[in-house]
Amino acid sequence: MEQPTEATRAVLHVLPLVLDLGGTFVFAISGAMVAVRHRLDIFGVLVLAFAAGNAGGITRDLLIGAVPPSAIADLKYSGVSALAGLLTFYWYPVTHRLRRDVQWLDAVGLAFFAVAGAEKALLHGIHPIMAALLGMVTGIGGGMLRDVLVSEIPAVLRADLYALAALAGASVVVSAHLLHLHPMVAALLGGGLCFALRFMAIRYGWHLPTAQPPQEEAADAPRRRHHDEGN
Amino acid sequence: MEQPTEATRAVLHVLPLVLDLGGTFVFAISGAMVAVRHRLDIFGVLVLAFAAGNAGGITRDLLIGAVPPSAIADLKYSGVSALAGLLTFYWYPVTHRLRRDVQWLDAVGLAFFAVAGAEKALLHGIHPIMAALLGMVTGIGGGMLRDVLVSEIPAVLRADLYALAALAGASVVVSAHLLHLHPMVAALLGGGLCFALRFMAIRYGWHLPTAQPPQEEAADAPRRRHHDEGN
Amino acid sequence: MEQPTEATRAVLHVLPLVLDLGGTFVFAISGAMVAVRHRLDIFGVLVLAFAAGNAGGITRDLLIGAVPPSAIADLKYSGVSALAGLLTFYWYPVTHRLRRDVQWLDAVGLAFFAVAGAEKALLHGIHPIMAALLGMVTGIGGGMLRDVLVSEIPAVLRADLYALAALAGASVVVSAHLLHLHPMVAALLGGGLCFALRFMAIRYGWHLPTAQPPQEEAADAPRRRHHDEGN
Repeated sequence: MEQPTEATRAVLHVLPLVLDLGGTFVFAISGAMVAVRHRLDIFGVLVLAFAAGNAGGITRDLLIGAVPPSAIADLKYSGVSALAGLLTFYWYPVTHRLRRDVQWLDAVGLAFFAVAGAEKALLHGIHPIMAALLGMVTGIGGGMLRDVLVSEIPAVLRADLYALAALAGASVVVSAHLLHLHPMVAALLGGGLCFALRFMAIRYGWHLPTAQPPQEEAADAPRRRHHDEGN
Repeated sequence: MEQPTEATRAVLHVLPLVLDLGGTFVFAISGAMVAVRHRLDIFGVLVLAFAAGNAGGITRDLLIGAVPPSAIADLKYSGVSALAGLLTFYWYPVTHRLRRDVQWLDAVGLAFFAVAGAEKALLHGIHPIMAALLGMVTGIGGGMLRDVLVSEIPAVLRADLYALAALAGASVVVSAHLLHLHPMVAALLGGGLCFALRFMAIRYGWHLPTAQPPQEEAADAPRRRHHDEGN
Repeated sequence: MEQPTEATRAVLHVLPLVLDLGGTFVFAISGAMVAVRHRLDIFGVLVLAFAAGNAGGITRDLLIGAVPPSAIADLKYSGVSALAGLLTFYWYPVTHRLRRDVQWLDAVGLAFFAVAGAEKALLHGIHPIMAALLGMVTGIGGGMLRDVLVSEIPAVLRADLYALAALAGASVVVSAHLLHLHPMVAALLGGGLCFALRFMAIRYGWHLPTAQPPQEEAADAPRRRHHDEGN
């Protein structure tokens, strides 16, 4: 398949929307849950839902020059985010009881975002390697902003295979693209790998090696924090 | 009035500038006051003044594709911010004694920003609902970055009717636009509502309902913070 | 020299790349060292290396409308950042023993970034005064994001002459440009001043005056933090 057909082009355009909205919903729930746990007011819950659901995609769109970003140009994104925020705020006990399922949904959302992010970057003519990285950014950006807004170190920076799963999935999408596979096949392969890695990480505690600074250099060592950062 | 006249167009272009600069000044003072309270150096005070005064508008401009953002293209914004920062740094006791008045000025600034943000988004062809949200973003973005930079959870995420006042004001501007009212009328109505809501919130402690997580789920419960965030 | 020659134009285009990549490398090392000290996993180390090395330039590029930013369009930036991150992760004791040298390298990186940032902004037709400020933003943006991501107040907001050195260097570049000096001369003068100021600040503890709020107003006074911020 040298030149994409019209149908292929259509899929390339529609697929990101479907994946994006699904991912937005589950990520928005994760943002709203963090907000509830920090006793924010209902507006704060909606903001964190929107931030967690859309910051990754907005960052990607700004970086590839797709302005205004989908999350601004298309009302569906804020609608889906607001819905997730309200559900979480008013039915927190339910959402919380379903927490383990949310964790699986979140893995699905990550897979959706990683695939959609890579597809969209490719579509905008970004170099394949950067497209894979932008797929990862799409997947992790929302969670990072969510954590920064409640003044915590983003969980993804020390969590079990979270970003790596996104990067692996996005890389498969990009490779499949270079091999001229159908974008739907690329999405299934890449999304599947991302979900599988995340599944194994949650189930078996897979994680990446952690930095082990000499004890007295660690940031949690008493009274060293603001010294010798070296800027 | 089907088609805007030349005069109306002129107002549409000039109004945001006037409102923006006024809002920038009072927001920059709020940023500088937070910086002083955290014992930053004079440069840190100027950075927080600029951030609080301009981050909302810069975010709006990046999102609607108005690049370079006004705060970069037009020197007046940095000038006004620097002035506010220097005044606060060298006359902190005075600024601080006027704190209650600053609170009212801040309400005026919020009204200015909400109106200016919504007008500018409409002018760039953004959907009316998103234009209202972008008016709100213009109003709250600066305060959010200010708080993130001093490692605190943004006050707006749990404060009394702050963002809601901005959203209400911006929504009135957008509705007035859809009803083909004169933009000056829209600005007065929207800005007035925003200020009135903020006034009531400050005076009578109006606030939004706050999330009440089960005690052991709250982020301030001992030693739970970095577990089970679920990413 | 009224019109720049072809050779001058070439230098104007190549110089920022060389300076940017050098600055990216040393800043990425500073980001990775902070990550190691916070016991992030290897992915977190790579993210902080990329953030510290590239956030300043990406911010500048988004603000001047140079999209996609160099750090996205050009693989060399992520490559250099990843290299710095891996070196720091696997040879932390070595990197750490070389800490004093890294401090000097960091001063060189700051000089590179300040010069490159100002040159690129001028090249995009930004007003000279804003171009100087954008040179400074290029120099300090990475370190600010690095610190925000580990939930600390950016060191640059209270550090010894860090941002001022960048601003001074960038201002010299801009002034030299207005005087029609050769861009290479501008780079040497501006970069030299930036490095010299930073050198003096490190060696002799030069610093800016710090805000001295009345004791009971300081953010570190017990139990005052979340009150009366005035939004």
